[in-house]
Amino acid sequence: MIRKKVTLAEIAEIAGVSRATVSLVVRNSPLVADHTRQKVERIMADLDYVRDIGAARLRNNSSRTIGVIVPNLVNAFFTEFLSGAEEVMGLDDRVVLLANSRDDTLRQDQILQRFRGHGVDGVILCPAQNTSPDLPDRMRRWGLHLVQSLREVGNDATDYAGADYVAGIGLAVRHLVQRGHRRIGFLSVMARTSAREERLTGFARALAETGAEDGGIVEAELSWEGAMCSARKVLDLPAAPTAILCFNDVLAAGLMAGLRQAGCQPGRDRAVVGLDDLPLAELTYPPLTSVAVQPATIGANAARLLARRLASPDAPILRDIVQPVLHIRESSGG
Amino acid sequence: MIRKKVTLAEIAEIAGVSRATVSLVVRNSPLVADHTRQKVERIMADLDYVRDIGAARLRNNSSRTIGVIVPNLVNAFFTEFLSGAEEVMGLDDRVVLLANSRDDTLRQDQILQRFRGHGVDGVILCPAQNTSPDLPDRMRRWGLHLVQSLREVGNDATDYAGADYVAGIGLAVRHLVQRGHRRIGFLSVMARTSAREERLTGFARALAETGAEDGGIVEAELSWEGAMCSARKVLDLPAAPTAILCFNDVLAAGLMAGLRQAGCQPGRDRAVVGLDDLPLAELTYPPLTSVAVQPATIGANAARLLARRLASPDAPILRDIVQPVLHIRESSGG
Repeated sequence: MIRKKVTLAEIAEIAGVSRATVSLVVRNSPLVADHTRQKVERIMADLDYVRDIGAARLRNNSSRTIGVIVPNLVNAFFTEFLSGAEEVMGLDDRVVLLANSRDDTLRQDQILQRFRGHGVDGVILCPAQNTSPDLPDRMRRWGLHLVQSLREVGNDATDYAGADYVAGIGLAVRHLVQRGHRRIGFLSVMARTSAREERLTGFARALAETGAEDGGIVEAELSWEGAMCSARKVLDLPAAPTAILCFNDVLAAGLMAGLRQAGCQPGRDRAVVGLDDLPLAELTYPPLTSVAVQPATIGANAARLLARRLASPDAPILRDIVQPVLHIRESSGG
Repeated sequence: MIRKKVTLAEIAEIAGVSRATVSLVVRNSPLVADHTRQKVERIMADLDYVRDIGAARLRNNSSRTIGVIVPNLVNAFFTEFLSGAEEVMGLDDRVVLLANSRDDTLRQDQILQRFRGHGVDGVILCPAQNTSPDLPDRMRRWGLHLVQSLREVGNDATDYAGADYVAGIGLAVRHLVQRGHRRIGFLSVMARTSAREERLTGFARALAETGAEDGGIVEAELSWEGAMCSARKVLDLPAAPTAILCFNDVLAAGLMAGLRQAGCQPGRDRAVVGLDDLPLAELTYPPLTSVAVQPATIGANAARLLARRLASPDAPILRDIVQPVLHIRESSGG
């Protein structure tokens, strides 16, 4: 197969603009007028102009590609997170490539090696469970810039974008206590991560502050089915909690469906509160009270941290933490 | 920054195996025993061994990376689709990179050029709306293998994995007619794609076969909010349909929430049927009757078609079409 390589000069000639203008279009400069950009881009598309990433990388030290690794895609949380990161990276002419580690560190390593081999500029990582705390150091040695998000390993070794789940759980517990609940249970995922630790810390702290009782902790697989199946265990908790706080909305929505199947009406017989406030919180029955953390904002924050890190590799480490807000709906009683 | 390069021979020495064995592990050969593989992989991870994708590509003509481009991530459909594709590609030691075109052809071109620049082996594409029918030809000239999925352009120019939505819509319409509905409306997305055309063809055909009336077509933005807002338009349709068939479950779930807000009880005052049968179909109120198409299976089928195409570039073009099944729940009445 012969590929005739189109040059910038040829594109410039056809478009009737200077080679410098075409070059500015390629680099997505704001100096080029919109109609000129569109014309040049159309010609580049027609001629199958492909920017040689290898050459561009040597020139700019940049592939204008960043990688995002998430531990699962069960959760619409991550799709919103990704859309926020893409929005910010798109403004900067960067393409975001997503990969799913399935919470498996070997797979995560494999993905990182591919990213490294392809020369991506940097990575936004929500680390798989059991990720070694030295991963940030290893990636630094590889020259691969890293921002952690939502979960983290390595004790503040990197920039981090997340939400204050300790505060978020506090909002939820105080709301339930105000509604008269004294025994509150917690439905958690199984994966041992900083995200789980943070929520359980918030739970213990909020119970201590409000004087409410720990109604017991149940663990479920992070899936709709797993959450539905957990309803039986929740109903059998010896402390008989009247309210259940859930690790996230997926677990909360699944739990409510499971409770209904068991003849227990969420919002009336048991209060249920979720975390994340996904769009589905308005679609469940009853609509789900949930702690909103704006996943798209967290994704955008992570992307901004990475863009800053790429521009200034030696800048001080930053943490960007979203403050959560409680959205009260019917699932927590009336 | 100095990167000391680890060689296969060094890894072999530490693992106490031959260099050939390490090489087989790198190439994911089934000839290596599991415990040997695990040991070698652990050592490679500890030593930060990175396979040089550039060199490997020259040697095997493969980066062992494939790209998947989807037009949106609103829909959990695509996350299930992706997990199916990953499952199959993972068996083959391939990493799947996902990118989101946002139904924008310029963005889709940009992503394809990045994939091309990075040397991905092939692409599974759900083409953005208004994708030019000559894209498959252009990609062929680039040497980038292509499988289309869920939507397609270019008249059978490539392998294709999808579902038979004409048959699926037929199942839904016949079910509604059996329940006594005579006027059936359709809630569609706006994007003009083969996926929309196929569903509307199925709708017209099923109405003709059953003698039911066309209750009118409403278009909504593909988002939860867009679907909720469409409820007013659906209720105001002059033909006053008693049942609404929806383009997918996202629209159906949003429509049901919007109908409830307007004082109309889905499943009692209006029948609502979705397509895709996402997990959320069991979580909505009332639970949603939906046409199941097994997105994970379609993703796996697309991955198998691409793996076949990579192995045999000149093999005849194949189409792999999943037959849908109707899951009846309460939203279509009792």
